[in-house]
Amino acid sequence: MSNLHEECGVFGICSQQPRALANSVYYGLFALQHRGQESCGIVVNDDGVLSSYRDTGLVGDVFTPEVLSRLPKGTMAMGHVRYGTAENASRVNAQPLVVKHIKGNMALCYNGSITNFHELRDELELKGSLFHTDCDVEVIAYLIIQERIQTGSIEEAVVRACARLEGAYSLLVMSSGKLIAARDKRGFHPLSLGQTEDGDLVVASESCALDAAEARLLRDVEPGEVLVFDKNGMRSLRDHCGTVPRSLCVFEFVYFARPDSIIDGMAVHTARNRAGAFLAKSYPVEADVVIGVPDSGIDAAIGYAQESGIPYGIGLLKNKYIGRTFIAPGQESREDKVRIKLNPISSTVKGKRVVLIDDSIVRGTTSARIVRLLREAGAKEIHMRVTAPPFIYPCYYGTDIPSRDVLIAYRMSHEEMVKHIGVDSLGFLKLEDVKCIADQCPDGFCTACFDGIYPTPTPAEVSKARFATKLSAKEENK
Amino acid sequence: MSNLHEECGVFGICSQQPRALANSVYYGLFALQHRGQESCGIVVNDDGVLSSYRDTGLVGDVFTPEVLSRLPKGTMAMGHVRYGTAENASRVNAQPLVVKHIKGNMALCYNGSITNFHELRDELELKGSLFHTDCDVEVIAYLIIQERIQTGSIEEAVVRACARLEGAYSLLVMSSGKLIAARDKRGFHPLSLGQTEDGDLVVASESCALDAAEARLLRDVEPGEVLVFDKNGMRSLRDHCGTVPRSLCVFEFVYFARPDSIIDGMAVHTARNRAGAFLAKSYPVEADVVIGVPDSGIDAAIGYAQESGIPYGIGLLKNKYIGRTFIAPGQESREDKVRIKLNPISSTVKGKRVVLIDDSIVRGTTSARIVRLLREAGAKEIHMRVTAPPFIYPCYYGTDIPSRDVLIAYRMSHEEMVKHIGVDSLGFLKLEDVKCIADQCPDGFCTACFDGIYPTPTPAEVSKARFATKLSAKEENK
Amino acid sequence: MSNLHEECGVFGICSQQPRALANSVYYGLFALQHRGQESCGIVVNDDGVLSSYRDTGLVGDVFTPEVLSRLPKGTMAMGHVRYGTAENASRVNAQPLVVKHIKGNMALCYNGSITNFHELRDELELKGSLFHTDCDVEVIAYLIIQERIQTGSIEEAVVRACARLEGAYSLLVMSSGKLIAARDKRGFHPLSLGQTEDGDLVVASESCALDAAEARLLRDVEPGEVLVFDKNGMRSLRDHCGTVPRSLCVFEFVYFARPDSIIDGMAVHTARNRAGAFLAKSYPVEADVVIGVPDSGIDAAIGYAQESGIPYGIGLLKNKYIGRTFIAPGQESREDKVRIKLNPISSTVKGKRVVLIDDSIVRGTTSARIVRLLREAGAKEIHMRVTAPPFIYPCYYGTDIPSRDVLIAYRMSHEEMVKHIGVDSLGFLKLEDVKCIADQCPDGFCTACFDGIYPTPTPAEVSKARFATKLSAKEENK
Amino acid sequence: MSNLHEECGVFGICSQQPRALANSVYYGLFALQHRGQESCGIVVNDDGVLSSYRDTGLVGDVFTPEVLSRLPKGTMAMGHVRYGTAENASRVNAQPLVVKHIKGNMALCYNGSITNFHELRDELELKGSLFHTDCDVEVIAYLIIQERIQTGSIEEAVVRACARLEGAYSLLVMSSGKLIAARDKRGFHPLSLGQTEDGDLVVASESCALDAAEARLLRDVEPGEVLVFDKNGMRSLRDHCGTVPRSLCVFEFVYFARPDSIIDGMAVHTARNRAGAFLAKSYPVEADVVIGVPDSGIDAAIGYAQESGIPYGIGLLKNKYIGRTFIAPGQESREDKVRIKLNPISSTVKGKRVVLIDDSIVRGTTSARIVRLLREAGAKEIHMRVTAPPFIYPCYYGTDIPSRDVLIAYRMSHEEMVKHIGVDSLGFLKLEDVKCIADQCPDGFCTACFDGIYPTPTPAEVSKARFATKLSAKEENK
Repeated sequence: MSNLHEECGVFGICSQQPRALANSVYYGLFALQHRGQESCGIVVNDDGVLSSYRDTGLVGDVFTPEVLSRLPKGTMAMGHVRYGTAENASRVNAQPLVVKHIKGNMALCYNGSITNFHELRDELELKGSLFHTDCDVEVIAYLIIQERIQTGSIEEAVVRACARLEGAYSLLVMSSGKLIAARDKRGFHPLSLGQTEDGDLVVASESCALDAAEARLLRDVEPGEVLVFDKNGMRSLRDHCGTVPRSLCVFEFVYFARPDSIIDGMAVHTARNRAGAFLAKSYPVEADVVIGVPDSGIDAAIGYAQESGIPYGIGLLKNKYIGRTFIAPGQESREDKVRIKLNPISSTVKGKRVVLIDDSIVRGTTSARIVRLLREAGAKEIHMRVTAPPFIYPCYYGTDIPSRDVLIAYRMSHEEMVKHIGVDSLGFLKLEDVKCIADQCPDGFCTACFDGIYPTPTPAEVSKARFATKLSAKEENK
Repeated sequence: MSNLHEECGVFGICSQQPRALANSVYYGLFALQHRGQESCGIVVNDDGVLSSYRDTGLVGDVFTPEVLSRLPKGTMAMGHVRYGTAENASRVNAQPLVVKHIKGNMALCYNGSITNFHELRDELELKGSLFHTDCDVEVIAYLIIQERIQTGSIEEAVVRACARLEGAYSLLVMSSGKLIAARDKRGFHPLSLGQTEDGDLVVASESCALDAAEARLLRDVEPGEVLVFDKNGMRSLRDHCGTVPRSLCVFEFVYFARPDSIIDGMAVHTARNRAGAFLAKSYPVEADVVIGVPDSGIDAAIGYAQESGIPYGIGLLKNKYIGRTFIAPGQESREDKVRIKLNPISSTVKGKRVVLIDDSIVRGTTSARIVRLLREAGAKEIHMRVTAPPFIYPCYYGTDIPSRDVLIAYRMSHEEMVKHIGVDSLGFLKLEDVKCIADQCPDGFCTACFDGIYPTPTPAEVSKARFATKLSAKEENK
Repeated sequence: MSNLHEECGVFGICSQQPRALANSVYYGLFALQHRGQESCGIVVNDDGVLSSYRDTGLVGDVFTPEVLSRLPKGTMAMGHVRYGTAENASRVNAQPLVVKHIKGNMALCYNGSITNFHELRDELELKGSLFHTDCDVEVIAYLIIQERIQTGSIEEAVVRACARLEGAYSLLVMSSGKLIAARDKRGFHPLSLGQTEDGDLVVASESCALDAAEARLLRDVEPGEVLVFDKNGMRSLRDHCGTVPRSLCVFEFVYFARPDSIIDGMAVHTARNRAGAFLAKSYPVEADVVIGVPDSGIDAAIGYAQESGIPYGIGLLKNKYIGRTFIAPGQESREDKVRIKLNPISSTVKGKRVVLIDDSIVRGTTSARIVRLLREAGAKEIHMRVTAPPFIYPCYYGTDIPSRDVLIAYRMSHEEMVKHIGVDSLGFLKLEDVKCIADQCPDGFCTACFDGIYPTPTPAEVSKARFATKLSAKEENK
Repeated sequence: MSNLHEECGVFGICSQQPRALANSVYYGLFALQHRGQESCGIVVNDDGVLSSYRDTGLVGDVFTPEVLSRLPKGTMAMGHVRYGTAENASRVNAQPLVVKHIKGNMALCYNGSITNFHELRDELELKGSLFHTDCDVEVIAYLIIQERIQTGSIEEAVVRACARLEGAYSLLVMSSGKLIAARDKRGFHPLSLGQTEDGDLVVASESCALDAAEARLLRDVEPGEVLVFDKNGMRSLRDHCGTVPRSLCVFEFVYFARPDSIIDGMAVHTARNRAGAFLAKSYPVEADVVIGVPDSGIDAAIGYAQESGIPYGIGLLKNKYIGRTFIAPGQESREDKVRIKLNPISSTVKGKRVVLIDDSIVRGTTSARIVRLLREAGAKEIHMRVTAPPFIYPCYYGTDIPSRDVLIAYRMSHEEMVKHIGVDSLGFLKLEDVKCIADQCPDGFCTACFDGIYPTPTPAEVSKARFATKLSAKEENK
């Protein structure tokens, strides 16, 4: 039950005949909804004319039947779900971004975080460029268009722009005649390629979105690869492939991705089972039942149960109607006590020694609350096992980890954590194990949030630049 | 993954001091949301003045912070979630119903189905009574008020009215000074009594709503019992208690109730585990993994796994963002194929012999679709086990079972069903076992939908009256 | 610029072929919008089945294209615009009311006020009748249905019910086969009968609604007349005609009705011109320009100008975008000053001696504010003339006159009023003149609000009953 | 009853203390609503931070109390109402535009039309600039910012940018520390300067908005003038003043502006009276009554009546509830007949010889419809007089005149028009008279739409560029 979030999911589709592709994008975005709930958007390319709709809200709320029916048929379409922080939550930041330029129109959306965003933006602003949003994607748009003026094709412009971008990105670009997908050269976040029975080619942040759009997974887009889809089919531009080592975010397996997705050939569900099994080996305990915190602790709990031989049980029930609309009235005075989101099942835990599996511990508040609910429901012992190592470093690649000062693993010793959360024992997945939860083991993962080893140049300057820019917004124009 | 629905859930609370009780009702209704998603409403009693709000939609959508804040503090409040069929889905049918009469105002809401509704309504209409809704609850209101004119108190009027009502009802009535809860004499549906730390008394359709409102379960309201809450506390009127045998709807354990609820002393979760174990004993099979159809097949799948020794696994993932808003665009042509609601997890089922547990089979369409998805994901064998006997009789007590003509178990032989659904084997929970899934075993359950033994007088006349009334709506007034 | 309001407007139409009659009702209600802005509704009768929609809001906001298109074609339809006081403004009180009874369904709507409402309601409640609304129309529905049980036809039931109703009403009733229109025997409020080119018969509160629905005015429904429309055409039941003298509300001519309406053969516009001319004769003054307060003072200003020979001018401009949505932010501190609703045209009044015509003075606050605006715009003298006598008695027939304590003409002497409003002179239309503004002169008008001569039995008991009932709402049910 | 529209209205305010200036802007925009109903927006500057809100819809619908209350207090604020054509009606085009640039943030809004828009945009796009909207204002933003990089102050950048802009504009620019107002050097459209009692300085498209915001009119901003408001008060930059002759759009007096506004010292109301008087002199006729088409024909009708001695009357009533929401259901078949928007008052016109005054004739369709209504209401003769010369040339300065092919005065001879509209005689205001309706007579007006004499360089190339750009939007990016 992590409170971490990753920024966004993308979905694109290219057909040889005009179809109601907005429907396919709708299905794909619905399947990617877990990657971002703040806003969403769809763009359809109908013979070179781009029609788009985007707004804040969930896919099902934004794309009513009426809205969806107003989008035309077309040969290319793409969409985006956005995770946004409170400070920049607004319609203007919803993607795909659609811009007009000398060669026509262009739509863009992406998933990730550009680490040299501020340098690039400063450089553009110095030339007199105007910005409407706070999004990295607007910088990407400028880079592409400024390359486009120099070069003969949009795909070449994308390849050149990628050379200037540092950080994590799974990017989709649509011009009047082409759909282009690009994955950053380190492959921080997944990007899957699939094909429908009708032959339409599909790219999506996760393979579960291919399933939803009834496309078969062909392969992952490779780190550094640029794919071009148009009326002639698909081409791969590999200029940036293999130039640096891979560094896939390990948290995709631990928490972000849906268990039915397959990333770089590895089922997320299996990786989580394996994490549970690693925990059972590392931290064995005598207990009566293994339970998981829904939703992402469940798979690992089953893995722990299988490895340890302790029976698996359902110990916590999540209210399936809790969504954006739940408001918790009168919560000031009793916030820790409310069981509406998560209610313990007494018949599972009463009088039992319980192994409790969760995906991560960030601040520790939620964990402490869950432990208290289980105690009230009669659990005799609670042994908590976590399917990730402790967070102690910030992430610069798209994961919204809060500042170090609130990270429990940074603030407290192991003993203090045990006491604070109220468990009888506590075990975190070992760093060497987390690197082995997928078959790529042990290399190829970014584990910077656990060990501080960042795959890109040190981001300290980026951070400085960010503060500087924020200040300047209040300065006076003389 | 049943397509059956029960009509409604109720929640009431009485305090000795004015409090923001609408908040407690909100929490309670959120926990009861699974019992009805069509409409909802809350009434608050502030010193004899009834303030109410009701509308179509989910609790979280109807009761925005603004709406909730407009409801006053009070000493009594109650609320309702309604399941409605498409034909009568509208604001006017939302409950609680608030009516004005000679003694003041009265609010009512209930859960169930009155089998002699049409006789009672005809009788009232013959006297010149007007009706605004199609709801049974408006008939109940008339009965109570017409008794109220003859007798000295509202609770006595409720007791007398109950003597005239046949069928299933968990009823809440609020007058300017009292909150009254009544459960039909056969106890078809659950009604739980609880108390908060502050001493407020709470009644709710299920104990999970007591948890959500932070009340402790005291006991179930007894079949036939009428409870009166007012400034003097609680009194029990037992005129109708023990006059007939109990007949609790067994489907509350199998499907309707939340697994964290406790009905008549029995945990729903445990009952479902037990149903799974019965199935494992009755229909053993050599298999590699046991999976459940979310949400209500999960508990039984674990029970089957434990009894059989076959490992439990997660084989199907439900999209947690699917709600009222999902519209399935372009589905005419491919409705059976879409995986957006439920996606198989290949890594669990590929190449495996799978035991698949679901709560019930109604038309068979959904089951056939799930089986196909699992086959496509690579399942080698599929052995389906169902935690209820086959449906072959209509229900007159509040469960929305479709007409016999569409019930697969009525239309087909066992072999035809096996073929139609596409499984390798199929087993339904035996009737003698379903009567033993709770500790009340083997008596005390209504199993009419499985065996045709109805606990109330034959409903054939009711059915006739229903047709007659529908026709009359089109007759001309001369 | 009166702040008085009348309750409601009605519109009904009957055709021999099924047509999109909801459209005609929509046009009619749009034309009657000035009679009520709180809520509105339409009912269509499609072969005996009544389909309805009603909500709070203006006609154009409630009846969106989508809502309107969902109403079926039919052979009869009717609609209502409601003026409601803040205390009972809600969806539940919107009309037409649709009720179900022993003979089928019935829809009702009406315009006016029943003076023996409380006696009738008490009598019904004593028999155990339930009420859902606070509207007189629900009492009317009961009376009709209880007569309907005794008699052979709905129209006979309406005639009998009318015998029991005291007060003002223009009533429409729709059964599965008939549309019935009834006007109270004194004819307090107008009700016009018309016919379209296609032969459809139409009734409406004002003839301007006939124009909007493209119907030609045939005649006024007579006081006491009951008209029955069905597949056989129209019949007139005249049991109540001529039983008592007429008493048309004179304020329909002065303020309520639209100037393009014709009431009992007299054009409202002409009556207002005439009122202006009377004022010019009664209160001549040396001046440079005559201006009217928009909208209803304009016609009389032109009449005054023509009679006096002083030029007419436009001295005040009303913002045509002011509607329900205007919120006057930050108005606590400066409410008297804002010119957004009404702005003086300086070029008309600067340095001039101005005759200012308004339709009525209730509290005097608005008049004082307008006078101040004109002074600031440079008016040298302001001579106010009012097209009605001073209000000093309450109205029981549908006009929302506030309590006597706030009526300026009741609280102040003439000299005090002149000073309070800030004018140089002030003249009210004489009582003998107001009786002559239409050709019915001098009899046939109700002028109770000016002279206290009420055409119905003394309403003092009604008033007492009203207080008693309100108190009982807070009494406890024992 | 013209169907012509002008693009937009602006309102800005600068205070020395932080105040709830959004309220003042709200009042101002409400008063300017007639200049644009498509969308609106407000920006507040709170200590250098710009907070904005904009959406499609009327001011009162977009700025609900809740939305307005979320805007902070500040020392500067500005707002905009936009008239948009169907093709570009959308939220993204709503103003004020807010952009981010190297020196911070900037907000802009304007009223008018830039004739060299396409050249400027092409030039910017060639440099790699991206555009989010189709609005001229985005080009203006780029010009200012690119000058800003070269020069030391935002006001200097605005002055320089103005040198590059051709056409009509009343422009407001807000930086973190300054509010700047600029009127194009020919003064096509009005821009008024006022001051509140508290000393706040206000600029607005029309003086009626100053009244609404309780500011006193100081003077008009001069053609070419740039006013700078900041914490030091106001400064005037006059680099562009007097460089070319004035050319105020004469249609501001005839139709666009509100009658209570004062433009360049002349009351609009008076100008319209005068236009009516000119018509009476040029086209005398024997008649019984002079009526005007609401709203803008009314003032001229009174002028005609005064000059001719024929009595003025109210002959047409406009439904005051007609707004954006009126949908005209079922209008395909009878569009010319509906009287819901405008209903004749028979008592005024029946049997009379009528002089009918309207502000302009564009297609002739509306005029023909009105004439037919008056004939049906009994008018014996109809003599139409129009307060403008015939339209025969396109406007490039902000007036949305349709293409020449649909202009009745371009398509038909005078006799054909008389016949088509169905009048007994027809007279247009003479060109020499229209130049004299204000005191600036006879110079200083743009009358290009009547005589084809354009005050700016020939716009033919502009038109060509426009076509070229539209085509390019469909070209493929290679």
